[in-house]
Amino acid sequence: MTAAGPAAASAPRRRGRPARTGAADGPGARDRILAAARAEFAERGYDKTSVRGIAKTAGVDPALVHHYFGTKEQVFAAAIELSMAPALSVPEAVVAGERRGAGERMARGMFQVWESPETRAPMLAVLRSAVTNETAAGVLRSLIERRVLERMAVELGGVPDPKFRAQLASGQLIGIAMLRYVIRMEPIASADIEEIIAMVGPTLQRYLTES
Amino acid sequence: MTAAGPAAASAPRRRGRPARTGAADGPGARDRILAAARAEFAERGYDKTSVRGIAKTAGVDPALVHHYFGTKEQVFAAAIELSMAPALSVPEAVVAGERRGAGERMARGMFQVWESPETRAPMLAVLRSAVTNETAAGVLRSLIERRVLERMAVELGGVPDPKFRAQLASGQLIGIAMLRYVIRMEPIASADIEEIIAMVGPTLQRYLTES
Repeated sequence: MTAAGPAAASAPRRRGRPARTGAADGPGARDRILAAARAEFAERGYDKTSVRGIAKTAGVDPALVHHYFGTKEQVFAAAIELSMAPALSVPEAVVAGERRGAGERMARGMFQVWESPETRAPMLAVLRSAVTNETAAGVLRSLIERRVLERMAVELGGVPDPKFRAQLASGQLIGIAMLRYVIRMEPIASADIEEIIAMVGPTLQRYLTES
Repeated sequence: MTAAGPAAASAPRRRGRPARTGAADGPGARDRILAAARAEFAERGYDKTSVRGIAKTAGVDPALVHHYFGTKEQVFAAAIELSMAPALSVPEAVVAGERRGAGERMARGMFQVWESPETRAPMLAVLRSAVTNETAAGVLRSLIERRVLERMAVELGGVPDPKFRAQLASGQLIGIAMLRYVIRMEPIASADIEEIIAMVGPTLQRYLTES
């Protein structure tokens, strides 16, 4: 993978200083900015990340970041929507299939996302930003509202307060994730994931479907 | 409360610069350091707090902080044990009284701590430090291990894996606290606390007592 050919010479990422807007505004610029934003927010947290820093990492002018995404808050929204994509697809799995397996599907789907280091790391980064910055918490809030709660509330109709119940279920999973992956407390940190699913599946099932 | 009398003049907190160890080593020095440590860790998080900064806020020499508490990690341990004191007394309420009300007592005890701004703020500060720093997470881990899990595991004997089960129950409450107080998602952020207790009480009861 030592690329010394003509391709490497023309790779825009190798630029030493920010390019002028026009020059870097190629077809890959938007993706490159998004990747840079995810890396910056993950490494520094919301507070210490700037549009300027994102632009520098992406090798573009800050104006191009604003052009594609708007404010820092809006760049963050786009970045976390990508980071959370695997988790955001879980509700689909929950509402598909028989209602009596919904709790187990929700637990299994979320732990699939948390158990893989590649999908866990971006989620932990989002969590860190949300816990330390209110604007970041607000962006996460509206993302979950729009992509998770509304969907689940419609599909799991028939129980009273379906959004409230989806939140109790999500709360169970978020709290276990905190203990297992963040605080790393034993024995839950090393417990077999099937053991956890067997215990929390019925809890989620009760919240989601029993009135 | 405008104190311009002789008491104010001799108050050690008013000192402009750190005092020499001997001079500030009065009977209140230890408490003053602990109060300063809690304030510094809460405001800056674990990463950005220093023993030097704590000493300056307390109006003492850094050597006195080391004398009373040891390393920064050990000052943090003492500070969070104080911040978490109301929460750490909840297990006592859980194991006292009839076993069939244990789940509800656990939920009610924890929400009493979270609902009051005076006891909530220090808990949120501890959470922020634990989520953003691994050393801080380790300190929190051993505090909960020593003060909560061991106690509950002994008293709630008779179920398999009592520590694991106490963690599932704690996870439910931590996750709801995240959604209600940190991310502030509706409707759970404004829900009546009795409604939440009515829903999670049976969950905790099942984890803690049903084999």
